[in-house]
Amino acid sequence: MKIAVVAPSSRFSEEAAARVEAIAAERFAGVEIVFHPQCFFRHNHFAGTDEARAHALVTVANDPGFDAVWFARGGYGAGRIAEAAIAALGPAARDKAYLGYSDAGFLLAGLYRAGFPDVAHGPMPQDALRDGGEAAVERALAWLTRRDPASLEGGLEPGERHAAFNIAVLGAIVGTPLEPDLAGHVLLLEDVSEYAYRTDRALGHLTAQRGIRAVAGLRLGRVSDVPPNDPDFGESEEEIARFWCARAGIEWLGRADIGHDAANKVVPFGSL
Amino acid sequence: MKIAVVAPSSRFSEEAAARVEAIAAERFAGVEIVFHPQCFFRHNHFAGTDEARAHALVTVANDPGFDAVWFARGGYGAGRIAEAAIAALGPAARDKAYLGYSDAGFLLAGLYRAGFPDVAHGPMPQDALRDGGEAAVERALAWLTRRDPASLEGGLEPGERHAAFNIAVLGAIVGTPLEPDLAGHVLLLEDVSEYAYRTDRALGHLTAQRGIRAVAGLRLGRVSDVPPNDPDFGESEEEIARFWCARAGIEWLGRADIGHDAANKVVPFGSL
Repeated sequence: MKIAVVAPSSRFSEEAAARVEAIAAERFAGVEIVFHPQCFFRHNHFAGTDEARAHALVTVANDPGFDAVWFARGGYGAGRIAEAAIAALGPAARDKAYLGYSDAGFLLAGLYRAGFPDVAHGPMPQDALRDGGEAAVERALAWLTRRDPASLEGGLEPGERHAAFNIAVLGAIVGTPLEPDLAGHVLLLEDVSEYAYRTDRALGHLTAQRGIRAVAGLRLGRVSDVPPNDPDFGESEEEIARFWCARAGIEWLGRADIGHDAANKVVPFGSL
Repeated sequence: MKIAVVAPSSRFSEEAAARVEAIAAERFAGVEIVFHPQCFFRHNHFAGTDEARAHALVTVANDPGFDAVWFARGGYGAGRIAEAAIAALGPAARDKAYLGYSDAGFLLAGLYRAGFPDVAHGPMPQDALRDGGEAAVERALAWLTRRDPASLEGGLEPGERHAAFNIAVLGAIVGTPLEPDLAGHVLLLEDVSEYAYRTDRALGHLTAQRGIRAVAGLRLGRVSDVPPNDPDFGESEEEIARFWCARAGIEWLGRADIGHDAANKVVPFGSL
């Protein structure tokens, strides 16, 4: 079992990589995690130039020697390379799993749209640096190596299709060539570090999209590190989500166990 | 000449209203500015509930006694009421001018889409509180009362069609029932208080939309109060806009004299 890590978005760190390697060595015998050198590149905001990030992703994805591609972290940058990188993927790329969340959602979206069968929203190597982040890394590795059902978000139902995204990231995907067909899917959403008025605006935008109105329903994960709204917004994130679901005719299906935190569970795209 | 002011977004203030009234009394004899009482309502983040804001807008727009509707300020909230309010507008509403920018862009978009002939992006009463804001208010009133060509953005060309928006606001409009047909238009964009990575993400999203790819070209206004990116983003707002225009095949037409500041010029939607 060989897992490649690449960093399509923001700069990654040797420290996070070392923690992930230590966890894998201690608890996942026989699993080899290969951090592509690009993970430690730096170009302004990004883990290397667009060309370097795309090249690393395409190289490991097309390499039949790897069983999975694990996105190192979010931040920002995957959307700049996703379309071109996915267009360069061959048959070997379809035989592996892809795991990430947050800004990696640009890639999850494009890969799922392109028919890749094994795409999932879940913890990334960078989560090793969170308080309690070891559990997140173990959860991700348990899913990547043996599809451990304990890694899955608890409300996923066999026979239903699912997708999960960060709200701001999905807002930047809709209407672009990366937008997947989510008709009939249960859509799980989470967000972090957004003012309440922005979450309201983003959900208004999303729930007005024709493609999003076709989902089977919406579940809201954690919305964390919300800066104080001045004046107070007066509605919780759940009230905001219910408001827009009701207006859009989207079924409100309750909360979800995903978020920008160590408890973030795995959501495979499509059916279980 | 009678101008109605309503506040479809965030809370407005008596102080700004008083300054606008003083400017009008001193320099615009015969112009009556009527601040609808709703301007001073408060409901959480907003200048009154959705119902109150929509009702005030519909009332003054449908009142043949007013020549113009001037949006008091931006912030956030117009997108929650725009679709329903515009659907409630009758023939008298088409005979008047509408002026605003920032969050008021939700209304400019929907009104222009609905075929309203006299919709413009430009200063609002709240700008009276800016340093040098008196000039912005005068510029707006000169346009509202006598279509003063000196109020116009300097690069507008007769025979061309134009539209202007805040980047984040237009990003929340595309794909919704408020999105106007901007094919063949010169699109002027500005933004404020966004991290460089967010402007990059927002322009990536916008320039990937089918509707936006149909514009005649893009001009970039001021992008101000940009919080420091950590690490430095390494590209100016102009480099970011040029990057996405080049990738999307949208013609880059240079800078524009609009922005969240006292120098913000008027951009009538459509042809001059």
